[in-house]
Amino acid sequence: MTSYHEPAAIGRSVLALDIGGTKLAAGVVREDGTVLSFLTVPTRVEEGPDAALDRLFTLGTSALRAAGVDPADAPRALLGCGIGCGGPLNSVTGTLICPPHLPGWLDIPVTDLARHTYGTPAVLDNDGTAGAAGEWRFGAGRGTRHLVYLTVSTGIGGGFVIDGRTYRGAAGNGGEPGHITVRSEGRLCRSCGRTGCLEAYASGTSIAERARDAVREAAAHGQRTVLAGIPLTELGAADVARAAREGDPLAVLVWQETTDLLAEGLTSLVNLYEPEVVVLGGGVTRSGDQLLAPVREKVAGLAMGPAAAAARIVLATGGDRAGVLGAAAIAFERLTPRRDTEDPGTEAALPSLL
Amino acid sequence: MTSYHEPAAIGRSVLALDIGGTKLAAGVVREDGTVLSFLTVPTRVEEGPDAALDRLFTLGTSALRAAGVDPADAPRALLGCGIGCGGPLNSVTGTLICPPHLPGWLDIPVTDLARHTYGTPAVLDNDGTAGAAGEWRFGAGRGTRHLVYLTVSTGIGGGFVIDGRTYRGAAGNGGEPGHITVRSEGRLCRSCGRTGCLEAYASGTSIAERARDAVREAAAHGQRTVLAGIPLTELGAADVARAAREGDPLAVLVWQETTDLLAEGLTSLVNLYEPEVVVLGGGVTRSGDQLLAPVREKVAGLAMGPAAAAARIVLATGGDRAGVLGAAAIAFERLTPRRDTEDPGTEAALPSLL
Repeated sequence: MTSYHEPAAIGRSVLALDIGGTKLAAGVVREDGTVLSFLTVPTRVEEGPDAALDRLFTLGTSALRAAGVDPADAPRALLGCGIGCGGPLNSVTGTLICPPHLPGWLDIPVTDLARHTYGTPAVLDNDGTAGAAGEWRFGAGRGTRHLVYLTVSTGIGGGFVIDGRTYRGAAGNGGEPGHITVRSEGRLCRSCGRTGCLEAYASGTSIAERARDAVREAAAHGQRTVLAGIPLTELGAADVARAAREGDPLAVLVWQETTDLLAEGLTSLVNLYEPEVVVLGGGVTRSGDQLLAPVREKVAGLAMGPAAAAARIVLATGGDRAGVLGAAAIAFERLTPRRDTEDPGTEAALPSLL
Repeated sequence: MTSYHEPAAIGRSVLALDIGGTKLAAGVVREDGTVLSFLTVPTRVEEGPDAALDRLFTLGTSALRAAGVDPADAPRALLGCGIGCGGPLNSVTGTLICPPHLPGWLDIPVTDLARHTYGTPAVLDNDGTAGAAGEWRFGAGRGTRHLVYLTVSTGIGGGFVIDGRTYRGAAGNGGEPGHITVRSEGRLCRSCGRTGCLEAYASGTSIAERARDAVREAAAHGQRTVLAGIPLTELGAADVARAAREGDPLAVLVWQETTDLLAEGLTSLVNLYEPEVVVLGGGVTRSGDQLLAPVREKVAGLAMGPAAAAARIVLATGGDRAGVLGAAAIAFERLTPRRDTEDPGTEAALPSLL
């Protein structure tokens, strides 16, 4: 028999749900960033939205139980529920519009569904926006006021905290830092259809694609490379990073183009935003200093004086839990009465939003 | 004998000073954007900072008189003084650090000097930041919450209003939208030293440079063009625009590259910020629809769905008075107690900042 905590015993907490194209994640997160439970299941997009949403909300219920929260007590025990998902979405109405990684998910009122399931308030944000909020509140950007967050993964997403506030933009999606130009007549970007986007060079998918192109060209010239030993269909960004570490000249070139163009993109962002910190997350950043060191050096050399001096470039701390921590962060942000640090003394005047 | 208004008669006003490399401007501006006086003189940078600062503050005094304000009454009659200047500067301490367009101006405490001269509070901001604030408060961006402002002139500057607040960044300069990459291996950017910046393609200086390069190359191939009839040392961006309107094929190519790469840069900005409005000012925008129409069309085609749908691209309304209106806007913003439209009801709790 499960024994549940008294609601007060777990402090202020939220249920956080992260909807990805490959996996769904759920967790209960405390206000200080402690993850009380963390669970994932495959999304199985091929089964359609109803089956996946069922799985998501069942996973959320399991996460509550695993954190010692009786699901029937959720309305009393929790501040609410935060949901992160790829856009386009409407963060005001809490509706998924037509996320490309979730085929068939059209106009899903996901916060209404969560509210109905758990009996708590619920909020939805772009997962890049949520990731920025998560690193700012709980991770590598704690204590700053201006943060740029990039997740360098299959694609490139991200978000911004500007003057201590998570940025959502007029369209409510919070901006697409993967879709800034780095080389206007360059490679086609499969996500947005134009050429030369940052994502078309520095995402995991693009690193692998460029490596495959390079292997084919090398083979046509009779050159042998470490990468050529890997079946082309299996060649991934991690293989490129490893081969570059081992000194394979072809992999070194592909990796250098990656760090060069990531640095170009980050220089544009640093010149634009003058952030205190640029936080890099996502699978490609598992390469650590192999990515970070050349990128830092190049941005420091390229960015304009005050902007370059202001910006530290660091790795995200959220890891596999970044999605859940991000969803938790936007729940704490949007379901807590605003404390504007620039307007001290006004807190008492604010009504509770709950 | 001059007759002065009673202080109350001119309403809430500020003295606005704009420090440019070519000219200095001063004006008195009312809270509704009415310009009560507007005066300019050449900067004459070759005479050094002391002479130019003397000229600036004398011009300010003349602007007060022209608006019917007795300079001795300025502390009572005015909310304060706003100053706009190119960076790098420190907007918190009010110090010009070393603006490249003002050689020899090192660590000038310009707000202290203004405070001492006029007896009023004074604030300093980057002129791009001030321009954004001016178009947002008085001009083409009125009524929006998210605005991107670009001034396409000798160089490219600009600023941002984000969620109803002027953005200053961690370094206090508010970002450099002219220094985002549009073509990474492209032309050298003389302002920042890297290659392929937006400024290296779409600024007036760069348009003229690219045109001169094209004329030289055409001449080497024995081609005749309208542009070749203009002495190379006098060839400017306006000549290129005119020749392109007249159908000169060379000028058409140069102009098309200009609008193409300006559109690339704006697409990056629109994808990043999802602004409601992109306001374009500066001398190059005098070409009007010849610039605006192809840029609008290309950005609409390139930008990602929700961002593209959100963003209108419009011309600035400040004209020659943009600098003074911008400096006035930052004075109203920073010298008025914050009214945070997202936190209704808190206004009364705020102490006066004056």
